[in-house]
Amino acid sequence: MSAKKTEIEIYDTTLRDGAQSRGINFSLEDKVRITKRLDDFGVHFIEAGWPDSNPTDGEYFKRIKKHKIKNARIVAFGRTRAKGRTCAKDATIQALLRAEPDALTIFGKSWDLQAEQVLKVSLKENLKIISDTVKYLKKKGFFVLYDAEHFFDGYISNAGYAVDTIMAAADAGADRIVLCDTNGGSLPSFIAALVCEAVSKTGAVIGVHAHNDSELAVANTLAAVEAGATHVHGTINGYGERAGNANLCSIIPNLMLKMNFKCIPKKNLARLRELARFVCELANVPMPGNLPYVGDYAFTHKAGAHMDAMKKMAHSYEHIKPLLVGGSTGTVVSDVSGRSNVIELAGQLGIDITGDAHKRTVRAVLKELKELGYGGYRFEGAEGSFELLVRKHLGVRKEFFSLEGFRVVVDKRASEKIYSEATIRIEVPDGKEFMVAEGNGPVDALDNALKKALLRFYPSLGEMRLIDYKVRVLDERDGTAASVRVLITSTDGKGVWGTVGVSENVIQASWKALVDSIEYKLLKDGL
Amino acid sequence: MSAKKTEIEIYDTTLRDGAQSRGINFSLEDKVRITKRLDDFGVHFIEAGWPDSNPTDGEYFKRIKKHKIKNARIVAFGRTRAKGRTCAKDATIQALLRAEPDALTIFGKSWDLQAEQVLKVSLKENLKIISDTVKYLKKKGFFVLYDAEHFFDGYISNAGYAVDTIMAAADAGADRIVLCDTNGGSLPSFIAALVCEAVSKTGAVIGVHAHNDSELAVANTLAAVEAGATHVHGTINGYGERAGNANLCSIIPNLMLKMNFKCIPKKNLARLRELARFVCELANVPMPGNLPYVGDYAFTHKAGAHMDAMKKMAHSYEHIKPLLVGGSTGTVVSDVSGRSNVIELAGQLGIDITGDAHKRTVRAVLKELKELGYGGYRFEGAEGSFELLVRKHLGVRKEFFSLEGFRVVVDKRASEKIYSEATIRIEVPDGKEFMVAEGNGPVDALDNALKKALLRFYPSLGEMRLIDYKVRVLDERDGTAASVRVLITSTDGKGVWGTVGVSENVIQASWKALVDSIEYKLLKDGL
Repeated sequence: MSAKKTEIEIYDTTLRDGAQSRGINFSLEDKVRITKRLDDFGVHFIEAGWPDSNPTDGEYFKRIKKHKIKNARIVAFGRTRAKGRTCAKDATIQALLRAEPDALTIFGKSWDLQAEQVLKVSLKENLKIISDTVKYLKKKGFFVLYDAEHFFDGYISNAGYAVDTIMAAADAGADRIVLCDTNGGSLPSFIAALVCEAVSKTGAVIGVHAHNDSELAVANTLAAVEAGATHVHGTINGYGERAGNANLCSIIPNLMLKMNFKCIPKKNLARLRELARFVCELANVPMPGNLPYVGDYAFTHKAGAHMDAMKKMAHSYEHIKPLLVGGSTGTVVSDVSGRSNVIELAGQLGIDITGDAHKRTVRAVLKELKELGYGGYRFEGAEGSFELLVRKHLGVRKEFFSLEGFRVVVDKRASEKIYSEATIRIEVPDGKEFMVAEGNGPVDALDNALKKALLRFYPSLGEMRLIDYKVRVLDERDGTAASVRVLITSTDGKGVWGTVGVSENVIQASWKALVDSIEYKLLKDGL
Repeated sequence: MSAKKTEIEIYDTTLRDGAQSRGINFSLEDKVRITKRLDDFGVHFIEAGWPDSNPTDGEYFKRIKKHKIKNARIVAFGRTRAKGRTCAKDATIQALLRAEPDALTIFGKSWDLQAEQVLKVSLKENLKIISDTVKYLKKKGFFVLYDAEHFFDGYISNAGYAVDTIMAAADAGADRIVLCDTNGGSLPSFIAALVCEAVSKTGAVIGVHAHNDSELAVANTLAAVEAGATHVHGTINGYGERAGNANLCSIIPNLMLKMNFKCIPKKNLARLRELARFVCELANVPMPGNLPYVGDYAFTHKAGAHMDAMKKMAHSYEHIKPLLVGGSTGTVVSDVSGRSNVIELAGQLGIDITGDAHKRTVRAVLKELKELGYGGYRFEGAEGSFELLVRKHLGVRKEFFSLEGFRVVVDKRASEKIYSEATIRIEVPDGKEFMVAEGNGPVDALDNALKKALLRFYPSLGEMRLIDYKVRVLDERDGTAASVRVLITSTDGKGVWGTVGVSENVIQASWKALVDSIEYKLLKDGL
């Protein structure tokens, strides 16, 4: 082992290729929140979208400039120029420039048949398209990554030509050449051999972009790294079209803990599980319990013989210490089950509960988290609710109001507009308040009524706005009725925060999340 | 490539190691049914259980004898003899014999620390335990497989000793020596090197048993085969403790289609997907859509650019022909789709709109899809709504009822239970129906009221149940109010379908999805 570890660049494409997953559609706000988390975590590149493919992606590149991104380069994705058109006159290319990202990834054809049958250009013309596009973007001053689409299939079809395409990109000055196993059908040994050849022939920094169609995406990525690739593409939880992309949540710990490479800052690895769950919540899809490293069952033992051996020898059935990736042995329902996680997460929110003085508080928080976790609560994406919970146990949570009751009515007549109104009765500092409001649906009406009732005492609530609302039905367990978990995202124009509520009744769950959101805002304002 | 393909033995442990999955518990009947399916499919060994660990497994070995098993050997699983006891006096060993299986698999310790700290025997004594047990079972006339538990971790701790343990088993006459990556932490290159060494030192038939803790179980299995292993363990769908076992549903097609090995009869491979779903149904767990080869999304394309290329060149984005494993090319209809997606998806739903006669229909569907897409509709996971839309344009959609109006009331008093009720007024075939119902929240109440009102005319609605409900707030655009998209999943015990609704009001969006769901059910029932 060398004294200095090789660094492998992590290129996250959750927001672009991951968003190709069936059932996953990120909102603009989701994209911004995930970008900030990935940046905090320490990935090197964040591929955020295709500027001219849809309005959300276009808007994203404007919005993200208002945020401070500390480590990562924000990447826009697009294709090489269209045939018979110059880059200057290609609308897609121009949209890439206008997005003003930190880096650009463009994909081109490495497979001879694809160039001829899909692009309908000659092989020679295809090389010129690649070369022209890279040169043009480099001249415009961009950091350019070239995605060699179908490189491995292309090599089987016409090895010499596939290599010519990446030589064209390298000669034109591409900063990274990424070999894509677009169809996910290649085997590790083949990937390794071709990465070797690409490294030696181009002299460029070679990357790999793998898909999981053969359940080999992680292995193919590691094989590429062993063969000399130093740049890897993937997504959080392996999200992506068909069987998904290479899963960064497995690749990163494998590279760092088992192969001794450097990727993200070492101390951040313990936040892997938290990151995985955060993205999962915003994607609004269930988290498979058996996901390696980050799933609820990743370190959970069912066999009696295993549990017994674990007692006698702690690492009997664990391939790594779970804490290294933010997990814990036997984690089942609670997402933040260790003391250190609680302290760490509170620290991130600016609450110091380290040291002996806070031992009891940490224990109490942990106990409540476990109980809530069992009831279906998850706090990823709901930092607001988590902070309120910690503050409650620190004895510094305040009650701003208390509920006497509410009623929501939704009315619809044949073709007329639907109408939602809520009445609410709360106790406030100087007595009782009774208020009515309407809204786009019962939760919105309730939110409006509550804010209207409180505005006289807390004028800053006027700045608040609900920007996302997600509902998830939880599994039925042991004959009890199904619960729903509601995740609310709010903003006051300065910050964005998430809160959570769980109940058998969706309005009740929403109410809990709403109340947390308002309390959190008042707390932030120092009230 | 040699003229005669090497045969790789498939050893299925779904019923034993797979049953260690959290949430999976097979009944005796399940086990018998799965055994017969696996046998039909053509696996070589079926590890069915541990005869003295529980009554179900004990009973299984009696029951299975009443069935004709054509190809597979039925295997009982157990451990080497306990310390200080002869095999003849070891209850576990005797239970194995009494089960009278076709073969026996016994596991022993390869890791020096495990022998000393868990078994609490000397290293020498451990070798004698392994040797004694194998010899005893061979003398009793059994086909004996030896599972070298923790072989790879053991090798790191004490390489010479780990090899001594498998030599002991081989010298005692074990028919197969299986190297187990019990903790799932090893990398493919390490697995390959050790398999090589085991093959050359023991001269035995070497097998591999991998776990997926590093998301490398499939790759590790293939690496072992490349290094000379000819016997592989795994489970259907990768079921198993923690992150699961090696997934036979990926290993088998990889070996046969990509590495040119023989495993199961070639014609049976097309039943892979059916087998995967069968086991999934009996395990009573959801089937992840992104499972390679067998998942619903394994061959599904969302990106418009991909669909376009697929039309021009069929294998553009498919690593194998889906039919080889019993799958088919799927399509996700979203706002980025083209004509080809629409025709393809309709075809999958059994609606033929190919050919010139349907050109206008396809165009009309596409136009409405784009408009709906702009309004926030997405049809992935909402095939029910998509089918209704196509049928509408084909002029074969029927109106079963029409809405006059509804009212939903949600009531909450301080600490009392929240209460939701819905009244509904609809026109039905013989006049008007007015109904009231309650529920867990407004949508549930509305769903209950609507079904109650319709039940008299359409009794089959009584079979219907809402199994998932998702809400997503869509981005605000150009000052218009935010919309919400509601995705509902329903079942009638036979099928599962999804429907979608979009509106500024969440109740209205839910109502649309509910109505589609009911219409779809009635359509399916031929009403």
